[in-house]
Amino acid sequence: MGSAPRIALDAMGGDVGPAVMVAGAARAHQRRGDLQFLLFGDEGAIRAELDRHPTLAGASRIVHCDDVIAPEEKPTQAIRRAKTSSMGRAVHAVKAGEADAAISGGNTGALMAMSKLALRTMKGIDRPALAALLPTLGDNDLVMLDLGANTECDTQNLVQFAVMGAAYSRVVLDLEKPRVRLLNIGTEELKGTDELKTAAAILRDADYLGMRFDGFTEGDKISRGDVDVIVTDGFSGNIALKTAEGTARFVTDLLKRAFTSSARSKIGFLISRPATELLKHHLDPNNHNGAVFLGLNAPVVKSHGNANEKGVANAIRVAARMVREDLTRKITEDLANIAAHGDAQAAAK
Amino acid sequence: MGSAPRIALDAMGGDVGPAVMVAGAARAHQRRGDLQFLLFGDEGAIRAELDRHPTLAGASRIVHCDDVIAPEEKPTQAIRRAKTSSMGRAVHAVKAGEADAAISGGNTGALMAMSKLALRTMKGIDRPALAALLPTLGDNDLVMLDLGANTECDTQNLVQFAVMGAAYSRVVLDLEKPRVRLLNIGTEELKGTDELKTAAAILRDADYLGMRFDGFTEGDKISRGDVDVIVTDGFSGNIALKTAEGTARFVTDLLKRAFTSSARSKIGFLISRPATELLKHHLDPNNHNGAVFLGLNAPVVKSHGNANEKGVANAIRVAARMVREDLTRKITEDLANIAAHGDAQAAAK
Repeated sequence: MGSAPRIALDAMGGDVGPAVMVAGAARAHQRRGDLQFLLFGDEGAIRAELDRHPTLAGASRIVHCDDVIAPEEKPTQAIRRAKTSSMGRAVHAVKAGEADAAISGGNTGALMAMSKLALRTMKGIDRPALAALLPTLGDNDLVMLDLGANTECDTQNLVQFAVMGAAYSRVVLDLEKPRVRLLNIGTEELKGTDELKTAAAILRDADYLGMRFDGFTEGDKISRGDVDVIVTDGFSGNIALKTAEGTARFVTDLLKRAFTSSARSKIGFLISRPATELLKHHLDPNNHNGAVFLGLNAPVVKSHGNANEKGVANAIRVAARMVREDLTRKITEDLANIAAHGDAQAAAK
Repeated sequence: MGSAPRIALDAMGGDVGPAVMVAGAARAHQRRGDLQFLLFGDEGAIRAELDRHPTLAGASRIVHCDDVIAPEEKPTQAIRRAKTSSMGRAVHAVKAGEADAAISGGNTGALMAMSKLALRTMKGIDRPALAALLPTLGDNDLVMLDLGANTECDTQNLVQFAVMGAAYSRVVLDLEKPRVRLLNIGTEELKGTDELKTAAAILRDADYLGMRFDGFTEGDKISRGDVDVIVTDGFSGNIALKTAEGTARFVTDLLKRAFTSSARSKIGFLISRPATELLKHHLDPNNHNGAVFLGLNAPVVKSHGNANEKGVANAIRVAARMVREDLTRKITEDLANIAAHGDAQAAAK
């Protein structure tokens, strides 16, 4: 793949639409001038935004589409408009080889369904997974997957998620040998479902993969910073991710209440504002924006629906990085390694 | 059941042992002087603590046991010492009718195994569940179950958890008609596993029970305060509970870092101390201590291993309340209502 990523951007997705999506693209383009954009959506609206970003305009082409997938549409219905909607056409541009990665801030289920249908699941992967970066107390974010693409998962799904998550963390977090753990309800070997126990046994034995498998972890240890990739089924992953988001909001809401509870604490708040701004910055989802679908034949990134310009730029950077580092090829190699290892083991018996 | 609850307390359980457990009992007894205690464990150690709490000593009897279950022991091993250990004998005192409820701060798995064996599961309940109170932004805490007793749950388990959780919240939160929801990865009817969808259909139809079933909820809405009982399988419940604990600690750790990052923010912190103390108070697990096993023929409460004196007193208060309000009978009545409703429906067909 070339070194100048071509991004297919659904300019209509997200709560705000073209204004934020185009501004985000401009911000990403400002940092990496080699990015190329295909912008899908209402030509007039996109043109108006592009006029405010002339440098980006020079690196972009608008593809007009009337049709937009609504946030509440069912994937089974949305998919019928894969060839007309801004989301569907952005994905299709990747299939057709006109772009290297697709990004949308729209309906997650619809984006997943369209991406699977158009780009197909990689050889060696049974089911694609949704992965995202989460903040930690450590030196870097962590990768967590699956976050809701697969409600129920078997052993092979979990092992494949570990391989994909490790490859992704090597690319986006710049780690040589990420520390991988399976999310469970205890850290002892006997805990959890049979699927988890068998997946742990397979991964424990997989030293030849570019990861260090450290066994199980629990919900209260997610953000401690001693693990780089957390692997789980989509049901538990979605519950954990949303519970973490909700609790962070809960604590900051309590804090706000506390700080406004008296004149004294209001003054304290004003003085310590740089401190609370630091906290806000660390917890701002826009700094960790861009959930990725792993396991497809090309990168697709889901930007958060209410991401701001910075959040969209981050999602674009994640996509560009996956293209530059050729993540899809890296996952393929790891899967081949597992298969070869299995063959070698069988031959040795 | 009488109005003066007799509490069987495993004085050796928890990270500290007799010092905290006895002090907690004294604190609970100070508030409700009618409580009676059986204290199980090392007689010398308990006696030394009781000497500091003469009023409690007058309402207590020590039952000496040499044997203590260790935190890391497997339930299958611990259970062999049900008749010798302080934990096992506390549970057994309830079975023998010498006490009305048992409390331990020790090994959760062992306590569950011993309680199930000695006290048996209630008629109409397939599997007991572990329930706890969680803080919210609303007027009251919420009840969440199952928190880890059952890794996999079927539809009937979930429906029974809803009945038990609703009865428990009526008793401990003093609610007339608690708002009940099932934890899921989306709020649309189509989301989630078949077990969840079927359980929702049964509960939606169960207006005659003392609850209001409001459908599904998601991880990010747990602490908003618009639901009183959240029902889930033990795997997801454990992940959600621990993720919430971990995230709350993560945010407060970040806050501490931020507040100590400069002289200015340190001063701000000192001034706004009453505000941050308020936050600390709200998040202190000791204010919500006492996970209960629901579905057994008598109340058993698990106090958190590192609970302080206040936490233990709270666990005792929860147990006493379950005894006074005769929770076991209330759950039995609700289950009979479901059965009668089922029969009436069948007859009407």
